[in-house]
Amino acid sequence: MMQKLGVCYYPEHWPEAQWSDDARRMKEAGLSLVRIGEFAWSRLEAKPGILTFYWLDRAIEVLGQAGLGVVLGTPTATPPRWMITKHPDMLPVSKDEQVRGFGSRRHYCFSHEGYLEECRRITRLLAERYGANEHVVAWQTDNEYSCHNTTLSWSPAALTGFRRWLKERYGSIEALNAAWGNVFWSMDYEDFGEIELPNLTVTEPNPAHSMDFRRFSSDQVVRFNKAQTDILREHTKAPLLHNYMGRTIDFDHFALGKDLDIATWDSYPIGFLTDRAWASEEHKAKFLRQGDPDFQAFHHDLYRAVGRGRWWVIEQQPGPVNWAPWNPAPLPGMVRLWTWEAIAHGAEAVCYFRWRQAPFAQEQMHAGLLRPDSEAAPALGEAAQVALEIANAGLMAPSDAGPAPVALVFDYEAAWACEVQPQGRDFSYFRLVFETYRALRKLGLSVDILPPDTEDLSGYKLVLAPGLVFMREGLKQAFGAFRGKAILGPRTNAKTGTFDTPVPLPPAMDGLDAVVALAESLPPGTEVPVEGGGAFRHWFEHLVQESDTVVLATTDGRPALVGGKANEAPQLNYLAGWPDAELLDRILREACVELRIETEDMPEGLRRRDHGGRTIYLNYAAETIDHNGVSIPGAGVHVADPV
Amino acid sequence: MMQKLGVCYYPEHWPEAQWSDDARRMKEAGLSLVRIGEFAWSRLEAKPGILTFYWLDRAIEVLGQAGLGVVLGTPTATPPRWMITKHPDMLPVSKDEQVRGFGSRRHYCFSHEGYLEECRRITRLLAERYGANEHVVAWQTDNEYSCHNTTLSWSPAALTGFRRWLKERYGSIEALNAAWGNVFWSMDYEDFGEIELPNLTVTEPNPAHSMDFRRFSSDQVVRFNKAQTDILREHTKAPLLHNYMGRTIDFDHFALGKDLDIATWDSYPIGFLTDRAWASEEHKAKFLRQGDPDFQAFHHDLYRAVGRGRWWVIEQQPGPVNWAPWNPAPLPGMVRLWTWEAIAHGAEAVCYFRWRQAPFAQEQMHAGLLRPDSEAAPALGEAAQVALEIANAGLMAPSDAGPAPVALVFDYEAAWACEVQPQGRDFSYFRLVFETYRALRKLGLSVDILPPDTEDLSGYKLVLAPGLVFMREGLKQAFGAFRGKAILGPRTNAKTGTFDTPVPLPPAMDGLDAVVALAESLPPGTEVPVEGGGAFRHWFEHLVQESDTVVLATTDGRPALVGGKANEAPQLNYLAGWPDAELLDRILREACVELRIETEDMPEGLRRRDHGGRTIYLNYAAETIDHNGVSIPGAGVHVADPV
Amino acid sequence: MMQKLGVCYYPEHWPEAQWSDDARRMKEAGLSLVRIGEFAWSRLEAKPGILTFYWLDRAIEVLGQAGLGVVLGTPTATPPRWMITKHPDMLPVSKDEQVRGFGSRRHYCFSHEGYLEECRRITRLLAERYGANEHVVAWQTDNEYSCHNTTLSWSPAALTGFRRWLKERYGSIEALNAAWGNVFWSMDYEDFGEIELPNLTVTEPNPAHSMDFRRFSSDQVVRFNKAQTDILREHTKAPLLHNYMGRTIDFDHFALGKDLDIATWDSYPIGFLTDRAWASEEHKAKFLRQGDPDFQAFHHDLYRAVGRGRWWVIEQQPGPVNWAPWNPAPLPGMVRLWTWEAIAHGAEAVCYFRWRQAPFAQEQMHAGLLRPDSEAAPALGEAAQVALEIANAGLMAPSDAGPAPVALVFDYEAAWACEVQPQGRDFSYFRLVFETYRALRKLGLSVDILPPDTEDLSGYKLVLAPGLVFMREGLKQAFGAFRGKAILGPRTNAKTGTFDTPVPLPPAMDGLDAVVALAESLPPGTEVPVEGGGAFRHWFEHLVQESDTVVLATTDGRPALVGGKANEAPQLNYLAGWPDAELLDRILREACVELRIETEDMPEGLRRRDHGGRTIYLNYAAETIDHNGVSIPGAGVHVADPV
Repeated sequence: MMQKLGVCYYPEHWPEAQWSDDARRMKEAGLSLVRIGEFAWSRLEAKPGILTFYWLDRAIEVLGQAGLGVVLGTPTATPPRWMITKHPDMLPVSKDEQVRGFGSRRHYCFSHEGYLEECRRITRLLAERYGANEHVVAWQTDNEYSCHNTTLSWSPAALTGFRRWLKERYGSIEALNAAWGNVFWSMDYEDFGEIELPNLTVTEPNPAHSMDFRRFSSDQVVRFNKAQTDILREHTKAPLLHNYMGRTIDFDHFALGKDLDIATWDSYPIGFLTDRAWASEEHKAKFLRQGDPDFQAFHHDLYRAVGRGRWWVIEQQPGPVNWAPWNPAPLPGMVRLWTWEAIAHGAEAVCYFRWRQAPFAQEQMHAGLLRPDSEAAPALGEAAQVALEIANAGLMAPSDAGPAPVALVFDYEAAWACEVQPQGRDFSYFRLVFETYRALRKLGLSVDILPPDTEDLSGYKLVLAPGLVFMREGLKQAFGAFRGKAILGPRTNAKTGTFDTPVPLPPAMDGLDAVVALAESLPPGTEVPVEGGGAFRHWFEHLVQESDTVVLATTDGRPALVGGKANEAPQLNYLAGWPDAELLDRILREACVELRIETEDMPEGLRRRDHGGRTIYLNYAAETIDHNGVSIPGAGVHVADPV
Repeated sequence: MMQKLGVCYYPEHWPEAQWSDDARRMKEAGLSLVRIGEFAWSRLEAKPGILTFYWLDRAIEVLGQAGLGVVLGTPTATPPRWMITKHPDMLPVSKDEQVRGFGSRRHYCFSHEGYLEECRRITRLLAERYGANEHVVAWQTDNEYSCHNTTLSWSPAALTGFRRWLKERYGSIEALNAAWGNVFWSMDYEDFGEIELPNLTVTEPNPAHSMDFRRFSSDQVVRFNKAQTDILREHTKAPLLHNYMGRTIDFDHFALGKDLDIATWDSYPIGFLTDRAWASEEHKAKFLRQGDPDFQAFHHDLYRAVGRGRWWVIEQQPGPVNWAPWNPAPLPGMVRLWTWEAIAHGAEAVCYFRWRQAPFAQEQMHAGLLRPDSEAAPALGEAAQVALEIANAGLMAPSDAGPAPVALVFDYEAAWACEVQPQGRDFSYFRLVFETYRALRKLGLSVDILPPDTEDLSGYKLVLAPGLVFMREGLKQAFGAFRGKAILGPRTNAKTGTFDTPVPLPPAMDGLDAVVALAESLPPGTEVPVEGGGAFRHWFEHLVQESDTVVLATTDGRPALVGGKANEAPQLNYLAGWPDAELLDRILREACVELRIETEDMPEGLRRRDHGGRTIYLNYAAETIDHNGVSIPGAGVHVADPV
Repeated sequence: MMQKLGVCYYPEHWPEAQWSDDARRMKEAGLSLVRIGEFAWSRLEAKPGILTFYWLDRAIEVLGQAGLGVVLGTPTATPPRWMITKHPDMLPVSKDEQVRGFGSRRHYCFSHEGYLEECRRITRLLAERYGANEHVVAWQTDNEYSCHNTTLSWSPAALTGFRRWLKERYGSIEALNAAWGNVFWSMDYEDFGEIELPNLTVTEPNPAHSMDFRRFSSDQVVRFNKAQTDILREHTKAPLLHNYMGRTIDFDHFALGKDLDIATWDSYPIGFLTDRAWASEEHKAKFLRQGDPDFQAFHHDLYRAVGRGRWWVIEQQPGPVNWAPWNPAPLPGMVRLWTWEAIAHGAEAVCYFRWRQAPFAQEQMHAGLLRPDSEAAPALGEAAQVALEIANAGLMAPSDAGPAPVALVFDYEAAWACEVQPQGRDFSYFRLVFETYRALRKLGLSVDILPPDTEDLSGYKLVLAPGLVFMREGLKQAFGAFRGKAILGPRTNAKTGTFDTPVPLPPAMDGLDAVVALAESLPPGTEVPVEGGGAFRHWFEHLVQESDTVVLATTDGRPALVGGKANEAPQLNYLAGWPDAELLDRILREACVELRIETEDMPEGLRRRDHGGRTIYLNYAAETIDHNGVSIPGAGVHVADPV
């Protein structure tokens, strides 16, 4: 199987006469996939029940005849205006209880039963009509779940659903009161019908209440998606996928991904840099037209895990976008680089968003492969170049991108827990994990990301699990059986399932006798220095332990990193805080030496990824970098064949 | 005609016995105008229909008899409390749908038909009673339209009005769907009654939707004002005016100004410095007690254009105000300087706000010409000094302030377009134009501001039109016929009237063959350097062109400034981005040399304005400036007679 | 009487079997007080009228039998869920009109008559049952009035109450219109029923309107508390107290304190540092694990005044808390230091919050004297140490902590006035007074805080009254009769009771002939330098005067500090602005020399407090300080016996 390139296309935006010429130009550029349909509901069903699928029939035919494989989207992210008339209470509601109205997209609450039924209906209609269509090579459900903060909806429908969900989870109100600790401030309930959503309380609501609302909200997204996949499975054998976003953590992608065949994501490196990345202004300025050198890679690896090995970039930024706070243009070469990077991490396909820049509506400032006047935009040439390069490179299969020697556990529930109870205003689980990932990559390492229900770690030499607030039983046992080195902490196993502090105190892992006696959060600019260099920032835990297994200490003599019990396997370490880059580098470097994992120091901006026997170097810097005798131009790619 | 000074006065605030003494002291200070009445509705009509105009009769008589010309305001900016009982839905509504209640001022929605009728009624009553009164020399409508963000109201009345306005504009819902590009995210409507105001959508609404709401909202202000002027015209021959504010761009002042005879504005240099100006903290500290050296001048020139040559300052800051984030006192001399500056720009009159500082209610910390205990505040002496100086100076007519050799186009619609679609978070059309204005003034140039419906540029040597998002046909032809030099860009002609990207791509002007292939927005701290010095900030466009007319290039070799086609007139230039001060200075300086426009480098804080044959120098700095052999003290004025 | 230590305890959180062991360990640690009951309503009355007081009977018995004096709280800060069903409109409402719901605490509006009656009922039930209980040594009303911004409620109940309050205050609507100056913007009312709460107006409401709402809101808290104390007085002779918070100024603590016997407060030095103190980031970093060196002392002195000499710390931070933006752990020693500091300022008791860290609900990250697993947390040892030290020290009575030679007037109404009309965005009355307090403490001075209804100053040498916007007649006369030195200003007597600027202009005090002609507010980074060093920041008044009594002048020659009339007593000074630390130090130092008040320069972090004949030194720094031959370790205490 060879990697494919493709593009997102909106036939409904253009005169039908133009479709075949567009299809021809796509093919000429080396593209073989085209995604369509995901916002077209009002053109498929302009009035309730009045279906006009004929144009879509023809569009699929034209594109398919041109040799393009069609990815067909269900249009449920953009219900037509009449849907709101039919279901006035289907709109999502913000935390401060404002109804989020019609006029853009994603204007639905995941918990609304009536809308869910409408989605089943339109999905069934599409599946029946195109499920066996030879040109339709894959199906996409909806579009960018959770985008625009829609996972958490504070609507009447969500309240009804939440009460039902709680009743199923706890059985009796007494059990809920006990589980949440409602005795605390006389918060006991007598009936599930008394429970409200955890917003607009006088001061913070019970964190157990908030945590359950986060779990419920994620479950509703999974349920919404499954309603579509259940129907699609009845009518098609084509793989099912959804296009996830970057740094979107409000629902559990692992849980949702189980109902799909391929994980795909929308990669907007420059948009994400100004909108979603933590970095100094200096760092952002350096990578202004390239994106953060680790942000895309992190998501590639994350979604490879979500897709259980199968994943695509289904929307690849081709030029300036319109939605970030600022929208610079990519450096020449970056579209090629991003595409190569995805392939290096094992993508099966990369599709650009979008074919032709629209001259109207919300995204008219969002570049495409073509300009609005149909002239080629810079990205078209770069896409065509990659298409040729892939064809010539003879790469091995996408699945050769793994496994890596190092693994990093990522858990969406942990992210919610840290939002529910940050304890320090700027504590972000995602950031903690991402900084760990970046530290690994600066050592030239390829990384696998693991879900929290992992039960076998035997393929790895080194496993990291920072901030893993909840430790599932299976993973706990896997750590117990692990023969490599694992570095846990901070905040590991810090909460029970009902969001209590466990007694005995955390981490409460076999193989670790340390106890977290108390935790400190630290404001920006303050730190706890560690002997030998580096420091903790943001978070520091006071460890108390019986055995003498301190590996590293703070300059105040408290444990910074403790080893496991005695010298037995597993070799569990616990890190007592949030390490800065220097401390993290020291710890990881030492672990790699110990574990005989080969590292390669990466100059700023340069990254490497192993893929089968090849090593692919990606230069995110604007300037040429000379590295190990190879000169890689700014925004350039170097593929080193097996020695 | 000689320039007049005046003052704002509230007879209803003071015992009637005090009026004649106040009037006498006004006259003694050299004042000849007094504005009254604009907040007095509750004292004219304490209960619906129960009119008590007698006190106003007497106040006009007392003031008039003392030799003061009365400017009488309609009281529609402050409807009495009973009005809300009568029309509970007349209140404006904020974007987040909170009703903005009674208890301050401007508590009405421009779209409310019932309140509009009440305004017609009170205006008619006043017009009938005082329309022919010999002491009433001018009429003011309402007070500071748009102040406190009231142009945009998200009320039921506004929604009704907006739907009607859309129906009139588009005729059919199909036409609207096509014009807005509603196919984009299945946003099509079936009926005008389905359209909501463009707030509280899940993500950004269609920019065409937002833009039309901006146009509608401006039209409602114009309509509201015209309802009053139509009635006033029936009963009086006195000129009609309104008091505009500084940096208020939510409605089209040019459109509204066509129904008035004189444009007046409320000039609060120090309040505006901390509240409405862009500047470094250093700049703000330097001009803390003087105001920005260009802010007043800009508005003087803008409102001279709005008033088609006739304009006043009707509220001049006399000391600390109460409404800015911080409220320092003016340096001694500044009240005189501000007054002279207005006259230099062609003001017919300057009125101070207010006569006596009120010891009660919202503005009790707002200085007047008198202190609350009726002692003279510092401004009284400065006003009296200017009155004498004007009388002695024998200045030529206010109309001698124009025309200038250089013109700058200003378009309110362009400002809305850049708010609707900034593309970079801090993009401000007003700032772009203002920085261009400042650059001209630092070269000692007098400037005319032109409305976007200008159709003749023949009087000018140099015309600038930065950020002119919409280019009207008449102005387009005027540029085509222009024999001087015009510098357009960035964002010129970037949108069609329905807020589409035009195809062929912008700027699409005869005389320019460049095409904007894409636009980048840049975050603070980043820039695109230009060869020879200076850089673009905020915004940079990639120009593609056929001819070889690059005047300036970026250090990356892209066009920065391109010339027109060949060597024919008109000599159109297009600037590819937002120039910093250095780049702008280079370009303007070179253009002036080429066009033989004489420039004079202004030291920081010093500004000049030509008025007839005289040159007036204004020293906004706190320190003495020696300039061309003349020593001008801090906060001082120097009037250079014709050589 | 010797000082006592105690702890806050929640028997309802723990199995009954654990109570006696807990009580034993408390006693062993030297604690003799235990506060219970204040959040237990749902366990006392799980359904309306179904009372279950038996467990509380037993808890009091167990604790009392162990030798602990019980402080019993009324549970009115946490009404059970059924209360909301019974009184759906009892919830507080935020300024933007969002109902603040059930699910945390303080979910009631002080103005709701139905809930008030419920509070009377539960208080009566508790008072009847435990009023004569020998173990109950004191009663606490509610918990932390005003916490979570609940004093100001914008509910229908508050509106009803406010209208009634206004009618009582003004008698007729005409009187209110006149008092508020409603003529200003046609704001006149015809009926009290037309008046709304002063929120959501188009621009700022009448400050007189806002000020009355602040007074009303404070009165409602006092009324709410008195409803409980009136009942408690009928049934118990034990002292009544309430636990105030730090920097909580929304209600008049002096007024409320008159209905209580002891003022107690909740001292969270580290929480307050990051959440409620003004300081540079550098200062905050230096005292990150100690708290601001003056914040606790200020409140100790303030609440000593509120309690008319009798006061406790009833909640003392024992480790990291959970509610501040960041929550570091105290340095070892700080819990001891804070306790000693309270005693030095005259506390009768210090109770720690809480006994055992709860593993559930909102405060699970809030440390206690025990960890969640019942092991001793660091604070337990420090508490036990202080208990021994007190026993050994043989300190004199708590009442020996006063009087001090210097007094500082604090007025809650002045704080409201500066919030209602800051005139400069960052003007804070609390900060102004606190900075004055800090300046006195840096000179080693002990300070008394005086309420605004003080009528006798004869015990003091130096009295300071910065920012005292309202000057009551009694205090005015006291200043007139004062034989020491008083430093008034800025903003002294700046408003009448109806929030007008008084005419004659302020300060209008006998003994001062200066008049504030105008006031300037200054943005951060700007200042008015004073001759000889130091400057005004934030605020500067232009003084005009007849006599020649300028003590200090600005570098521009304006008066900075003026003396009183002639050389007669009283020696009143008026300070024309907000002094920076240098200027304040100069002025205070000079005054102390003149008044023969001994000062002692305190190194950064070191503070002293006189208590009877002893001098207690408290080292808030992390490092050892050598001072006058004594070496005091970081976080250390030194008690110097009388020489």
